[in-house]
Amino acid sequence: MTETPVKRRRKRDRGAARGQVGQPRAPFILRKLGTFNILGEEGLCLIEENADTILAETGMEFVEDPEILDIFANAGCNVDGTRVRFERGFCRKTIQATAPKQFMQHARNPANSVQMGGDATVLCPSWGPPFVHDLDRGRRYATFDDFQTLVKLHHTIPWLHHSGGVVCEPVDLPANKRHLDMLYTHIRYSDRPFMGAFIGAERAGHALDMARIVFGAEYVAENPVLYCVSNTNAPLVMDAHMSGALKTYARAGQPVATAPWVLTGAMSPCTVAGTMAQVLAEALACLTLAQLVKPGAPVLMGSFASTMSMQSGAPTFGTPEAGQMVLAAGQLARRLGVPLHTVGTLSASKVPDAQSQQEATWGLMMSMFAGANLINHATGWLEGGLVTSFEKTMIDADLCGKLARFFDGIDLSENAQAMSAIAATGPGAHFLGSEHTQANFMSALFRPETPDNNAYEHWEAAGSLDTAQRANGLWKKHLEAYEDPGLDPAIDEELQAYIAQRKSETPDMDYF
Amino acid sequence: MTETPVKRRRKRDRGAARGQVGQPRAPFILRKLGTFNILGEEGLCLIEENADTILAETGMEFVEDPEILDIFANAGCNVDGTRVRFERGFCRKTIQATAPKQFMQHARNPANSVQMGGDATVLCPSWGPPFVHDLDRGRRYATFDDFQTLVKLHHTIPWLHHSGGVVCEPVDLPANKRHLDMLYTHIRYSDRPFMGAFIGAERAGHALDMARIVFGAEYVAENPVLYCVSNTNAPLVMDAHMSGALKTYARAGQPVATAPWVLTGAMSPCTVAGTMAQVLAEALACLTLAQLVKPGAPVLMGSFASTMSMQSGAPTFGTPEAGQMVLAAGQLARRLGVPLHTVGTLSASKVPDAQSQQEATWGLMMSMFAGANLINHATGWLEGGLVTSFEKTMIDADLCGKLARFFDGIDLSENAQAMSAIAATGPGAHFLGSEHTQANFMSALFRPETPDNNAYEHWEAAGSLDTAQRANGLWKKHLEAYEDPGLDPAIDEELQAYIAQRKSETPDMDYF
Repeated sequence: MTETPVKRRRKRDRGAARGQVGQPRAPFILRKLGTFNILGEEGLCLIEENADTILAETGMEFVEDPEILDIFANAGCNVDGTRVRFERGFCRKTIQATAPKQFMQHARNPANSVQMGGDATVLCPSWGPPFVHDLDRGRRYATFDDFQTLVKLHHTIPWLHHSGGVVCEPVDLPANKRHLDMLYTHIRYSDRPFMGAFIGAERAGHALDMARIVFGAEYVAENPVLYCVSNTNAPLVMDAHMSGALKTYARAGQPVATAPWVLTGAMSPCTVAGTMAQVLAEALACLTLAQLVKPGAPVLMGSFASTMSMQSGAPTFGTPEAGQMVLAAGQLARRLGVPLHTVGTLSASKVPDAQSQQEATWGLMMSMFAGANLINHATGWLEGGLVTSFEKTMIDADLCGKLARFFDGIDLSENAQAMSAIAATGPGAHFLGSEHTQANFMSALFRPETPDNNAYEHWEAAGSLDTAQRANGLWKKHLEAYEDPGLDPAIDEELQAYIAQRKSETPDMDYF
Repeated sequence: MTETPVKRRRKRDRGAARGQVGQPRAPFILRKLGTFNILGEEGLCLIEENADTILAETGMEFVEDPEILDIFANAGCNVDGTRVRFERGFCRKTIQATAPKQFMQHARNPANSVQMGGDATVLCPSWGPPFVHDLDRGRRYATFDDFQTLVKLHHTIPWLHHSGGVVCEPVDLPANKRHLDMLYTHIRYSDRPFMGAFIGAERAGHALDMARIVFGAEYVAENPVLYCVSNTNAPLVMDAHMSGALKTYARAGQPVATAPWVLTGAMSPCTVAGTMAQVLAEALACLTLAQLVKPGAPVLMGSFASTMSMQSGAPTFGTPEAGQMVLAAGQLARRLGVPLHTVGTLSASKVPDAQSQQEATWGLMMSMFAGANLINHATGWLEGGLVTSFEKTMIDADLCGKLARFFDGIDLSENAQAMSAIAATGPGAHFLGSEHTQANFMSALFRPETPDNNAYEHWEAAGSLDTAQRANGLWKKHLEAYEDPGLDPAIDEELQAYIAQRKSETPDMDYF
């Protein structure tokens, strides 16, 4: 594309869009450090055996979708009405026989393609909230304008790797068609990977059609280019909305993650060991379905196990038990041999305050220590998932960047050892002006954007702004620096024609 | 002591003081989980060899304290003026020959004695700030009244294990005598372990005298009852203020931690590997001194390695590099065979906001994953250590409790496996009313005090308070529930007479 003067001018301050000085962006995190293992062999075997017992004795319900019952019956499973029971070990064996341990999800800009599995971690923004929040306008229902703004904002954040899916629910668009507008927005305004529509076979088909327009049908047939989260209704139920999308994506060779949102005590037992056995059982059943539908279909085990207040029943986040569960999930997924999908900076707070960051930091750090391969909701989530916060997005983005840097490990090069600097400086002197510091200060230390590290007097003189207030200015600065990645006009036209055609086929409906 | 009606009434709502319902307090954390190891054998050896090179070639300055130079010379070290150089491996061998791997610090209430070393972690409150901050009165110079209030507040927090030392600097008291009032306050208003005065041999002697009054001279001669932090002046200098206290405590068999506060890029190289070699070198030299003064003296390796803004020179916290450094320190201390002293919920934020908790949570979690044995500043620290915040104390306290629960590991008992609950509940039903949930809900999940997990509408109706505002009410509630542990009147009298005598011997001075 021809570079306009406007575009050239923007490039001057695109630091925010591409990582700060000396902090180059990577398409995903490649962890050089290990994982934190919370369970020993005995504990892991116990949970695996309990999951097998659940699948063999209680089984799982697959409702409103008779085809699935045939698929399982043909594979030799015990199908009784809509209840499916599995012989001990059958699911694990089926998954391990064909599911890939690792694969790529491709972006239309190949430099942004992401690895799923192994030592890779992919960070995705907030997903699902019907509300947005910012300090200027407060909490309000999300609109399509907010959706577009968030996609652009996320694209400016170097530490996010994925454009995500429902970054907020654009409730001003008809519920039965908005998936088309959301998909288009990801494709048009970002060149990072994105998620497919996740409710029902028909919308999944639309996502596949649009992906074929962007990537070409042959490429899509051979390569993962979409990402689908397929939730169960815990405990132990999958409905046709989810199974329809799961089948459609699996058949098309597109990645599916099964991620039941479990509130321990409500949708699972109020204990970690009980919840993890159930989470594993559900994942085993659903990933088995994907492999039976298409052997070799790329899948991820999902774990979104949250706690709840046993006094009020409200969901709670950043809790000890949630941390324990995601670490256990990491170990269980690695033993199963599939990548782990999990969740990040969750919080029940209503505003981007201290609670929001104690919970968010806890959650994202635990997911990283768990060795998670894809972390949904790595930025912006507030109020138990009802809100995407513009300010929290920026504050969480710093945490994403910190973790990327942290998991890059300790540099042990001769330069990093700095032995000559220590010898030259000697006792009682300082390193500020040393040659070594001068040579390294641009890249030596990670630079987050939202903290204020200045002296009290300087902070006061700058208006005594708290972190949320500073983040308010920052997301606007980021949006100003947003650079349109451009889209081939022919592809753009074809996408728009496709969307117009689909929209014209059915009346608007405000439910799904 | 006789129980007054007032005291009985207070006991009814002492939940906050003793841990919430179903969450009993432990005197220290006994970690059932492992540590996160950031360096492999090669990296650890490299840093150890570099530390040896620093000690052999550059050496360390011990200034204003000729006795130390004699001690080192007598041990065969190379003493050149005030510079001491050590043969490769000498320090490690000296420390490993006599320093205990693990010991107890005793409290006057034996139930509150803490283990130093092994799988134990002891959490201490904020240490050193000349200012305090609360939402009612803002930021102000700390007074003795604040000091007393903080000691009482800390005593109500079940997840703190230690009463600490300079919880704030009471600047309304003469600088040369306030250590006496601080020591008295810890002894009088808390029955947990506390720290000794840390500046100079004379004040260390006062702390020992007061400990002898409380515990008896024979007991103090045989048992650790104080705790001293002895900082170097990085890089590679120790002055007489610190070495004087170090020698006094070591001779008395009282624990000493050497904890240089290093700002990478200023007081050490701007790289992790370089900083850690220097930190280890300083720790090796100082712990060697303690062992030469008294073989077998209980010591801790300290690491307080922070980063700084390379733009402004301001200290920064919760950074990737700080996390890497504390994890490396944990491994280095374990290889050396001494407990690790480090730091917790540090932040440069001026207020208890989002920044303060992103940084605090990062810092305390990393220290816990490092397997730290004593964590100073586990609550309340703001503004790079210039401020103790009453509200942040409560918010950080929740994090302390969460980590204690987390490191208790996953319960794998039959009850926690909940297999019968899963079988009885079955697909699509919920666990809220299940027998298992009813039997376990009081203790199943940790309950922090500062989060608001309610629905938006309830939160709004309750005044739309952010976390800091809720914490403001909470610390007052805690103080109301404070229970005086009491002190034997004879001991109290003796302490007061001792303090009066010491104070009468010299005029007040406002510097140290």
